[in-house]
Amino acid sequence: MRTQVCIIGAGPSGLLLSQLLHRKGIESVVLERKTKEYVLGRIRAGVLEHGFAELMREAGVGERMDREGFLHDGTVIAYDNHQFRVDFAARANASVLVYGQTELTRDLYEAREAADGKIVYNVEDVRIQDADGDAPYVEYNVGGQGQRIDCDYVVGCDGFHGVSRKTIPETVRKEYEKIYPFGWLGILSETPPVHEELIYANSERGFALCSMRNENLSRYYLQCPLDHNPEDWSDDAFWEELKRRIPEQAAEKLITGPSIEKSIAPLRSFVTEPMRWGKLFLCGDAAHIVPPTGAKGLNTAASDIYYLYHAMVQFYVDGEEEGLDRYSEKALARIWKAERFSWWMSNLLHLYPEQGEFDRKMQRAELEFLESNESAQRVMAENYVGLPF
Amino acid sequence: MRTQVCIIGAGPSGLLLSQLLHRKGIESVVLERKTKEYVLGRIRAGVLEHGFAELMREAGVGERMDREGFLHDGTVIAYDNHQFRVDFAARANASVLVYGQTELTRDLYEAREAADGKIVYNVEDVRIQDADGDAPYVEYNVGGQGQRIDCDYVVGCDGFHGVSRKTIPETVRKEYEKIYPFGWLGILSETPPVHEELIYANSERGFALCSMRNENLSRYYLQCPLDHNPEDWSDDAFWEELKRRIPEQAAEKLITGPSIEKSIAPLRSFVTEPMRWGKLFLCGDAAHIVPPTGAKGLNTAASDIYYLYHAMVQFYVDGEEEGLDRYSEKALARIWKAERFSWWMSNLLHLYPEQGEFDRKMQRAELEFLESNESAQRVMAENYVGLPF
Repeated sequence: MRTQVCIIGAGPSGLLLSQLLHRKGIESVVLERKTKEYVLGRIRAGVLEHGFAELMREAGVGERMDREGFLHDGTVIAYDNHQFRVDFAARANASVLVYGQTELTRDLYEAREAADGKIVYNVEDVRIQDADGDAPYVEYNVGGQGQRIDCDYVVGCDGFHGVSRKTIPETVRKEYEKIYPFGWLGILSETPPVHEELIYANSERGFALCSMRNENLSRYYLQCPLDHNPEDWSDDAFWEELKRRIPEQAAEKLITGPSIEKSIAPLRSFVTEPMRWGKLFLCGDAAHIVPPTGAKGLNTAASDIYYLYHAMVQFYVDGEEEGLDRYSEKALARIWKAERFSWWMSNLLHLYPEQGEFDRKMQRAELEFLESNESAQRVMAENYVGLPF
Repeated sequence: MRTQVCIIGAGPSGLLLSQLLHRKGIESVVLERKTKEYVLGRIRAGVLEHGFAELMREAGVGERMDREGFLHDGTVIAYDNHQFRVDFAARANASVLVYGQTELTRDLYEAREAADGKIVYNVEDVRIQDADGDAPYVEYNVGGQGQRIDCDYVVGCDGFHGVSRKTIPETVRKEYEKIYPFGWLGILSETPPVHEELIYANSERGFALCSMRNENLSRYYLQCPLDHNPEDWSDDAFWEELKRRIPEQAAEKLITGPSIEKSIAPLRSFVTEPMRWGKLFLCGDAAHIVPPTGAKGLNTAASDIYYLYHAMVQFYVDGEEEGLDRYSEKALARIWKAERFSWWMSNLLHLYPEQGEFDRKMQRAELEFLESNESAQRVMAENYVGLPF
């Protein structure tokens, strides 16, 4: 088989790129290790930067998102029993869109299927070959059968554990990592959200986040030790702890119910450089991970897709390689800023075991400064809604 | 002897408060452990927030400062071989005034002497008595003779090692401290400054700062290990190291010469709470220390003086104690923000022994974000020129 762009991974990044390229007449094949149902079963964040939402519209998949998504013009920051709001609309002249990753992925699948886009599921043993040569190809097995796709470019959208990043020789790759000394215990419950916007809470008992998917599906998180087991947390224990970490005015309104999902996620900052090696390009989690504070995970993937899509259009339509040559540099410049923001917001809101009393006071001073200073709110709002591409 | 306000310490804080009170008809006595010549011999920073300069004018001691001081509308931030400017005038609509602490202290002495202000030098064994009662007094010796001053209030402007803070019982005091794992090796040289504004440099070899006192008196600093001895640093070694830490465009213009002073200062963040105990008020270094990055040392002292001066006028002129009662709370709210800024700017610019590669990348991302983002520059500029009182 031959195609122009071989995309590894049918998560939102791979699908979005494939769909964007299709609309410009560029052909791609997407290889997925799992099934569509498996991909759709993953529960992930759903806060889209305004530029990401715009990219979805450009891909022709923004209709349901715009109809069912929730525009958030701000967010609430709480500390101790006190809260304030950062107004994204007033401070950064933009909003974010709350729309679940599952829904967004479903829309992308529908669009790809409607356009007869090629997605191969259940692929095993993917090998990216000759990525540093002129004629790259990808080998893989499906049902025990060996297959091969020849292509101009390979795009790795296959996540942190995927084969794409590991294809780049270790002598070329430089990796940066920070592991945070805690996790997030998250639950999903079919209850109305406690507040119409997100509440990020710094408390003496640790961080908490009140988030949501829609009017009757709430997502709540508690900072917890990494060695905790989600099964040891009863729903009641979760709700009780959550109430103690958020301001009373929020706790009083909290509607609790049985959890329909409960899990603990570790927090990690990770970046690999470069994001291009020969004919291979990395996008999203394959190249970088952010801690979830600040909701940048899916948005950093979309950022890469934005640059790579424009670079590929520049190449296939205008015959100009400059965008592809500068992809790694441009993508990384924006990724590092998102890494910084996610790291800063994590530092602002969590309890760290190594923190001294002075460090806690610095958090407190930063929260009070953020509450009182318009420019500081602008900095936060501009980062949260997404820095310019 | 009896007075209204007994001030411990004839450094700039004590003198400024005494002078401000005098102009409102409030009587004070200043006690100083050393001589005037000793106080004037201390070489300290000289970057005044615009609000501090205004307070000097209000005290009637702004004339020479305004004539001889240098208005700085911005500062230069360098990393590696690259530099950019943060424009205070454009971003915060204000400036700072570069005017040496020695000069400012000299002006204050002249004003106090012209007004027959009482300053007692060479006092020993100062004891603040009954500060938690209704009739406080201060005992001390001069030339072996015991003395006593009865007063309404005692103000501790006697620095970090002074007796005032220690007068507050340990059960009442809460202290917060951070010691930085490096020092600043500073030299003073009778050479023209390398640049008309300050240059703060983050380099792979450690932090450097190019500062000045006037057109022919430069002050340069290098981050160095705490166990270094200034005598082991020859002038040549200093200049060579400085040139390697600042961008080439600056290094090429650097005019070197013999140092007339060379010393190593440790970096510390420190705050004690509360800043009032009964009739005793703490101001400046007696209550808090900042690392010098961001030039907040003298400015935080001026901040305390601002609040205490207004509170005392409110009490003596209007008979209203509210300002005195809220002094600690109001002073600390602003001090913690200055502590946060000094800590942030130290973190941004220094090499830390415990830093990993990811942490260095966060510094770099923050520098690039600061360079590229107007709101981030506003945050820095507003803090540097001084947050509102």
